[in-house]
Amino acid sequence: RSRTSGENLFVVLLISAPLSQKLEPPANPARFRDTNAAIRCFEFAAKASPDNPLVLNNLSVALAQADRNGDALAGFRRVVSLQPDSVMPRHQMRRLTSRIVPFWHIPMLNDVRRNDVFEAAIKRAIAEHGPSVQMLDIGAGSGLLSMMAARADATNVVACEVVPVIAETAERIIEQNGLSNRVSVVNKVSTNLVIGRDMQELAGILVSEILSSDLLAENVLDTFEDAHARLISEGATIIPRAASAIGCLVESDVLGNYAFVGTVSGFDVSEFTRLAANRLPIHGTMTEWRRLSPDIELQTIDLTCPRHAEDIRLIDVPVSADGTAVGIVQWMRIDLAEGIEFPIIPTTIPMVVGCRSCIRILGRSR
Amino acid sequence: RSRTSGENLFVVLLISAPLSQKLEPPANPARFRDTNAAIRCFEFAAKASPDNPLVLNNLSVALAQADRNGDALAGFRRVVSLQPDSVMPRHQMRRLTSRIVPFWHIPMLNDVRRNDVFEAAIKRAIAEHGPSVQMLDIGAGSGLLSMMAARADATNVVACEVVPVIAETAERIIEQNGLSNRVSVVNKVSTNLVIGRDMQELAGILVSEILSSDLLAENVLDTFEDAHARLISEGATIIPRAASAIGCLVESDVLGNYAFVGTVSGFDVSEFTRLAANRLPIHGTMTEWRRLSPDIELQTIDLTCPRHAEDIRLIDVPVSADGTAVGIVQWMRIDLAEGIEFPIIPTTIPMVVGCRSCIRILGRSR
Repeated sequence: RSRTSGENLFVVLLISAPLSQKLEPPANPARFRDTNAAIRCFEFAAKASPDNPLVLNNLSVALAQADRNGDALAGFRRVVSLQPDSVMPRHQMRRLTSRIVPFWHIPMLNDVRRNDVFEAAIKRAIAEHGPSVQMLDIGAGSGLLSMMAARADATNVVACEVVPVIAETAERIIEQNGLSNRVSVVNKVSTNLVIGRDMQELAGILVSEILSSDLLAENVLDTFEDAHARLISEGATIIPRAASAIGCLVESDVLGNYAFVGTVSGFDVSEFTRLAANRLPIHGTMTEWRRLSPDIELQTIDLTCPRHAEDIRLIDVPVSADGTAVGIVQWMRIDLAEGIEFPIIPTTIPMVVGCRSCIRILGRSR
Repeated sequence: RSRTSGENLFVVLLISAPLSQKLEPPANPARFRDTNAAIRCFEFAAKASPDNPLVLNNLSVALAQADRNGDALAGFRRVVSLQPDSVMPRHQMRRLTSRIVPFWHIPMLNDVRRNDVFEAAIKRAIAEHGPSVQMLDIGAGSGLLSMMAARADATNVVACEVVPVIAETAERIIEQNGLSNRVSVVNKVSTNLVIGRDMQELAGILVSEILSSDLLAENVLDTFEDAHARLISEGATIIPRAASAIGCLVESDVLGNYAFVGTVSGFDVSEFTRLAANRLPIHGTMTEWRRLSPDIELQTIDLTCPRHAEDIRLIDVPVSADGTAVGIVQWMRIDLAEGIEFPIIPTTIPMVVGCRSCIRILGRSR
């Protein structure tokens, strides 16, 4: 961070689009309307002139436009290696990295309370299973939980991370902290892990911080189900062992403005409410809502369970105050191990589930 | 909205993953690890049994997993038409709609001040050009601005909207408000509009609300450049005619926690700061920052200009208070017409641009 003072100036770099480099602006620009055609064209040029930074740069711009973010990032890296003083490809690398790496990684890392409860649970599990236990960390991120295991004497830790740029960074961090001999990073989606190749044996401890405030997310449960079926041993310790979505009914004009629309400038646009978000990310600092119910447990998932059934439930919510409900503000409670609960994850973004749509669905399906 | 009272219960619908319907759970489930293979398989089944809701449902689940959201939405709609009482495909439709339709549409519609200044500028332009002017609304959304033009007597309005489900909704809204004879919705990206087919003639008025707080977004400038080159007449009125990004240097522990990481639980993970978001969406209600500089104009874009050059600038920011800067909070000012300025768009999400990375880049490129 930069210390500023009243006497100094602070300098900011601004870069405008278009971000593709040009030798000179063509008089009558022929734009590529088909991004894939552009990619094929630049790939062809890159074969003819493999170390041409202009070609590589434009190829990478096209790849980024086609949402092939990983390939684009690799391309801009090569441009930077060829032209270390060039500002534009560095700017593009930052943009792409931001697209690839979810922004909540860093606030989560800075959450001391969360880190401490994870470490307590990890230490206890290693004391129980012994230091030579095969430990698997799914969604390793920076590698923090794996390093905690190594510090607690575990010698056989696999940190599985699917995003290449995050996995590389974890590898560097683990090396900088002198733990590369105990922790190996595997850059794969966990459902592609192979015992005997990526891990020596079935894991005796599985730790995973992939839970988000969206407990209902399909891929989270798929990941745990796959781990149960293929990656962990009988009697393995799973951290966390359970997670619950907690919520309360709220009144809020601010949130209502995000969820409902009626008459605007004299026109009836209420039809647009059907397109409203069914979940809205709201930051922990967003407090302009008033509770209309006590906390209720919306759902609990037992992660020690090998499979999870489909589930549709109606939940009765006791109402504790008069008001106009706009939805439910939701957060999470994770149960890491016996006696180690983490009641609320403050850096997780609570979500508002619009009520109207649910009511409409219920009205029709009852 | 639902009126609640202390005596009543409020009912919430919860649905757990997995969301694919199953006849019965297979004992040893063979999961599709390749989504495209799953799509091909279900497409094959759908050909053999075109009205089978189970096949259509599973095809749509696979399409959604492959991020083919529009196709998936169409599929779930067919499932609902075949099984009107089924809750799951309705839930999936809501999820997909939320993915497809940006959440800021509704708060923007509810922003009375913004609507009023747009209407003032539109009315003035129509008074100037006459009611038979060809008017083009790019990124029409709900169709609000097009309906304002029709109410101001314009008879020849094209509302161009790229997202199919939004375009359909706009069409319904325009019909419900009795303006279908004056406004026609074209479901295309504006760069594919064809004069003589989608519009009668070159537009004399172009209105567009596609500006976000990210003035630097490539596709926004591309859209305006394409409109200048192909879609508007000499002397056309462009609303807004200019836009500026305004910002100030801020101190904030909360935002700092999102942008920087150093030592965590005794491990040096500062390397992860390189993966920090370079822009962070912060809601207008998020006020836990302290200003360290006056407002500065970061960038102004003249939208009446047919082309925009590449631009890298250094901006000197006068510092008005001592503190530790974490970045710049940014918002927008739009200039709709002579005397009609909209100083701040409150529902736009201001962004924080991390400073450290800029400084690092500057240090190397100076």
